[in-house]
Formats: sequence, C-alpha cells, structure tokens
Amino acid sequence: MGEHNNPVPVVAIVVAAGSGSRLGAAVPKALVPVAGVPLVTRAIERLAEGGVGEVIVVVPAAEREAFVEVLASAPVPVIWVDGGAERQDSVANGLAALPDLDEADAEGQVVLVHDAARAFVPAEVVARVIEAVRAGADAVVPAVPVSDTVRELTDTGSVVVDRARLRAVQTPQGFRRGLLEDAHAALYETRMTVTDDAAAAEYIGCDVVLVEGSRDAFKVTDPFDLVVAEAIAARGEPA
Amino acid sequence: MGEHNNPVPVVAIVVAAGSGSRLGAAVPKALVPVAGVPLVTRAIERLAEGGVGEVIVVVPAAEREAFVEVLASAPVPVIWVDGGAERQDSVANGLAALPDLDEADAEGQVVLVHDAARAFVPAEVVARVIEAVRAGADAVVPAVPVSDTVRELTDTGSVVVDRARLRAVQTPQGFRRGLLEDAHAALYETRMTVTDDAAAAEYIGCDVVLVEGSRDAFKVTDPFDLVVAEAIAARGEPA
Repeated sequence: MGEHNNPVPVVAIVVAAGSGSRLGAAVPKALVPVAGVPLVTRAIERLAEGGVGEVIVVVPAAEREAFVEVLASAPVPVIWVDGGAERQDSVANGLAALPDLDEADAEGQVVLVHDAARAFVPAEVVARVIEAVRAGADAVVPAVPVSDTVRELTDTGSVVVDRARLRAVQTPQGFRRGLLEDAHAALYETRMTVTDDAAAAEYIGCDVVLVEGSRDAFKVTDPFDLVVAEAIAARGEPA
Repeated sequence: MGEHNNPVPVVAIVVAAGSGSRLGAAVPKALVPVAGVPLVTRAIERLAEGGVGEVIVVVPAAEREAFVEVLASAPVPVIWVDGGAERQDSVANGLAALPDLDEADAEGQVVLVHDAARAFVPAEVVARVIEAVRAGADAVVPAVPVSDTVRELTDTGSVVVDRARLRAVQTPQGFRRGLLEDAHAALYETRMTVTDDAAAAEYIGCDVVLVEGSRDAFKVTDPFDLVVAEAIAARGEPA
C-alpha cells in the first residue's frame, strides 16, 4: 500500500446490466423508478454516503444514453462501461476500466462490487464493508441470517439444512483491487462461472469475511420485491 | 383409509403462540393487525379458502380470551389449545387435541401445520399441499427458490453453497395424521429438537415432497416484515 497523504478513492463497480423483463418493465431494471427515483440512482446515493468516491456503472450497451441522463447529477464521478454476457463478465469489464494508479496504490485500492438492484442498502453497511477491507480482509461480504427453514435437493429428494450455519449474502462486496483482478483473471482463464465476487475470491483461495448486512439491502428481482421497495421508500430510514 | 361418503375434514394446526416483542408489539404476534386485520385472522381465512375445514389454534395460555374474541366469526370451527415451551411442543399439543375418529379415518386424515405469521399464504398454496397429501405423499412442504447467494459458516470461515439446490421452506406443511403423530411421538421420546414438521417427518424416515410455494407466504418476524405485510395487504391479490 502506498504511503502518502493523498488517499486513493474507494471505487464501486455497480452492475446495472440486467433487463427489466421480470419486473414487467420496458426499461433496464436499474432504471425502474421506485417512488419516482430509479434504482441505480438510489444505489449510487447510498454508496456515496457510505464512503465510495467514484463509481463504474456497467450498463446494457444500447441503453447507455438513458443511464447517462438519469445519472447526470450523481454525487460522485461516473465511468461508463458496457455489460458482458454474464454477470462476471460485466464485473470484469468494470475492473478493466479502473483508473491507472501506481502499482502499490492499485494493489491496495478498495474496490466494491454492488448490484444496482440492491438499491436500499444502508450507508452503514457500505461503510462497514469498506472498513473491513481497510482492516486487512481479502474479501468482505455483508450477510444476514436466513429466516426460513432451508432444504437441499438431493438425487432422491431433499434434506433439511442446519439454517443456523447459513447466511444470505448481499452486496456491496469489498476487495483489495489486486486480489479481485487476480480472481477474475483466474475465472477467465478456466472459464469457471461463479454467482458472486466473494465466490471468485474463494476460487483463488482467499478467506471471505462476513460483516453484518441489512434486510434493507434486499435485491429487487420480481414484482413482489417492487411492492416491498415502494413500501421501504415510503417508510424512509428504519427507526 | 376409510371408504365412505362422509369425508373427514382437513384440519390445520395453527401455531400462534409467539410473542410480539420483535415487532415491538404489546400483544402476541398473531394478534398484530395488518391493515386492521390480525395476522391469525388472515391466516385462517386463507386456510379455509384453500380447503381446511377445521382449525386447532395454539395460543399463549394467558392470551386465549383475546384470541377467542378476535376469531369469534372465523370461517371454520376453532379448537383452542395452549402453547408449549418450544414450537414442536405447541404442535404436539395441537395434535393431542385432534378430534377422535375411527382408526382408519384418523390414520389417513390430512393434517396441516401452519405458522400464523405466514398470514398471506395464497389459498392455492394451501390447496396444493392438501392435494399432494391426498395423492399419497407422507409429508409435503411448500418451498420457493433462494434468491440470495448463500454461504455456510465453517469452523474456519465460510464457503459458498450451490444455491440452485436450496429451497426456502414455508407453511402450511401437510401430513397424513398418523404419520405426524408418530413423528412427534418419536421426537418426544428422544428429546430431539427440530425446526419444522417436515424435519420431524424426516426424522422417522419419511420422504418430504416439495410443492411450489409463494413469495406471499413469507413469515412476519421483524418490523421490516411488517412494512412488507402492510404493502402486500394494500396490493391485494397478485396480478
């Protein structure tokens, strides 16, 4: 890590490349408004409040103009990148767009990866993830207990899983930049597919540290979630 | 199973013994109103719509009067039972209160176990569970895919779990009465603790059949869920 008084900003790669089809929307999911404010706008506001200094927003290539318009007055500088075939390709495209830094600074820079659909993530959760990376963790994910009983499908049926040992993983996930770059390079080389960036880090042998997430960091996926999102927007900050 | 033209009603044991403390309520959780209607009232309406002919409601002993008042005009006959120390004790108390039937009828009667806090379960889900028990399944649970990435805590950290194989389990869960009685008798004998009745059935070697659940069958646990519940009540039936 570089030693100087000119701190390297925390960068967040915001994955906003998904379609709105499951929400019944004609626009990309991240542009769907909740109480009048698009998901991606909400997500970036929360990231900025939590300590992110710059965002790389990964969008469907054909929709970039609409995103640029929506984020014209974003609270932090925005770099635009086109999405890839899979989520991990989109993240890799985001990584490739990270600003050049000298080697030591680049290695130690804190990079978050966030799903725009987790638009209501509290700023405290963002700050907690950044703090844990700064404290030395390789890879950090916010997580919450699983409230339903969980069963695992087997070849012949299903078996109950000890839910006390399970955690539902959210975003933003945080990494030292050099490590996340190495993880994605390894995935690219082996054509391995993962569901999130913590799994990418795990793939190259890193420990994944869990910090406390929040119910508010839920992912907007289907019409049910949109009902929840409107209710959470109307509620405001939790008491 | 008895052969006659006088069908044995489907009975649901409704577990309503939980406190309202996590919701910040001074009344038992099942009495907390959503859009003016208590959770337990909503739950029993959905069960009745789905084909349940009689309910056994397990309540905190000291609160029985308040429940009797709230359910004065329930759509099906109600039997009242006091709760036990743990959820499985409450269910066992409910089983002990099942009406006497001749042996063949009792063995084959369809018994559901439902959490009053899953107040918005669609009637179709209830009907689906009953149908699967009638079709010959030992134990039936409604389940939905898990939408978050899941990690499992290990002694040294955590590892990602293949979420495609996981299902979040809901209620009502359905059983042939004889089997559920045997399962609870076995638990009682060994002092084994389980998180739900499907796990009890699994404990005595039964196969558990999964049927399609619903996001609407979520469990109201904390203040976030209450916000969701109000929004779902305002939305009405899904489009």
